[in-house]
Amino acid sequence: MKTAVLYSGGKDSSLMAVILDKLGYDVELITINFGVFDSTIPATNSANNLGFKHKVVKLDKKILTDAVEMIIEDQFPNNGINHIHHEVIEYLADEYDLIADGTRREDRIPKLKQNEIQSLEDRKGVQYVNLTGIGYKTINDTSARLFKLQKAESDIHNSSDYEMEIRVLLEQKGQDINEIFPQHIQSRVIGWK
Amino acid sequence: MKTAVLYSGGKDSSLMAVILDKLGYDVELITINFGVFDSTIPATNSANNLGFKHKVVKLDKKILTDAVEMIIEDQFPNNGINHIHHEVIEYLADEYDLIADGTRREDRIPKLKQNEIQSLEDRKGVQYVNLTGIGYKTINDTSARLFKLQKAESDIHNSSDYEMEIRVLLEQKGQDINEIFPQHIQSRVIGWK
Repeated sequence: MKTAVLYSGGKDSSLMAVILDKLGYDVELITINFGVFDSTIPATNSANNLGFKHKVVKLDKKILTDAVEMIIEDQFPNNGINHIHHEVIEYLADEYDLIADGTRREDRIPKLKQNEIQSLEDRKGVQYVNLTGIGYKTINDTSARLFKLQKAESDIHNSSDYEMEIRVLLEQKGQDINEIFPQHIQSRVIGWK
Repeated sequence: MKTAVLYSGGKDSSLMAVILDKLGYDVELITINFGVFDSTIPATNSANNLGFKHKVVKLDKKILTDAVEMIIEDQFPNNGINHIHHEVIEYLADEYDLIADGTRREDRIPKLKQNEIQSLEDRKGVQYVNLTGIGYKTINDTSARLFKLQKAESDIHNSSDYEMEIRVLLEQKGQDINEIFPQHIQSRVIGWK
């Protein structure tokens, strides 16, 4: 069963990968890039340090530019990020039998709704899995036990989230990035404990 | 971290236990009984065959009789089963640091809602985890790979679900059990593959 875990190098997607790996799935970590800025280095390093197979998948830049237009229109990132996530999942559903991402219980964006998951699985004949059954406290505890973590203010060099290429495009268009994406501290997985 | 997985001997709760075990939690499987009928034998056998610690917890029979009254009033099991599940989770939250059950993506009953989980975690200072991120196809595939399974028509001798003691009480009260709980085929975990 070809199994893809959408991978940013963060705790959530790393934990999703570990769970599927421990259940016997032959996991391939997938990091998406739209050719605007190479945001995939942090995820590639994390994946290599954990010893997982990892692939960068380049998708059509139009997915990103459409999302950035939505974000500029909304002056808020949610719809744009959700647009990217849905397009990515639809793409992966044609290539893999099981697709997973690290969205957890508290996540609102990006997240597939129950009916969207059902539709995806039925239309594409795939299985979709995420971390919705687990809350941030359990994810933090488990990650702190399993992984070496590095905390840093989010910037384009230490994360492979969709956010990174969005930030680059927004900046090119003269938008106030820190208004749309407030700075936050994030943890990156840099290896096993 | 004291970790309890509510355990029926079925695929879902077995898989939940395996995931937490593989993530390094010291898992104790808990099967509930209300003293009406010893429905705990199948779960005890499954737990022993998998090599997990297992404990039968006896709770106040009133929880069960209240549920059965609700079910007779409704002529439908959902509210009664949910009542039992909530009481059980509240009890376990006073005894353990992390509580898990095998409710999966498609389950409607018994299931804690998002706001109920948040309230539970905040009031009791516990963590709660379930399988809501995983659908039945993935659970079936994974279980078939990991476990020896035995399929049978559900009856009071091959499951440790809340349903079993409810059935006994309903029968004592002259209710038509098969009207309220239609017969179904269920899989019990009888060991590792």
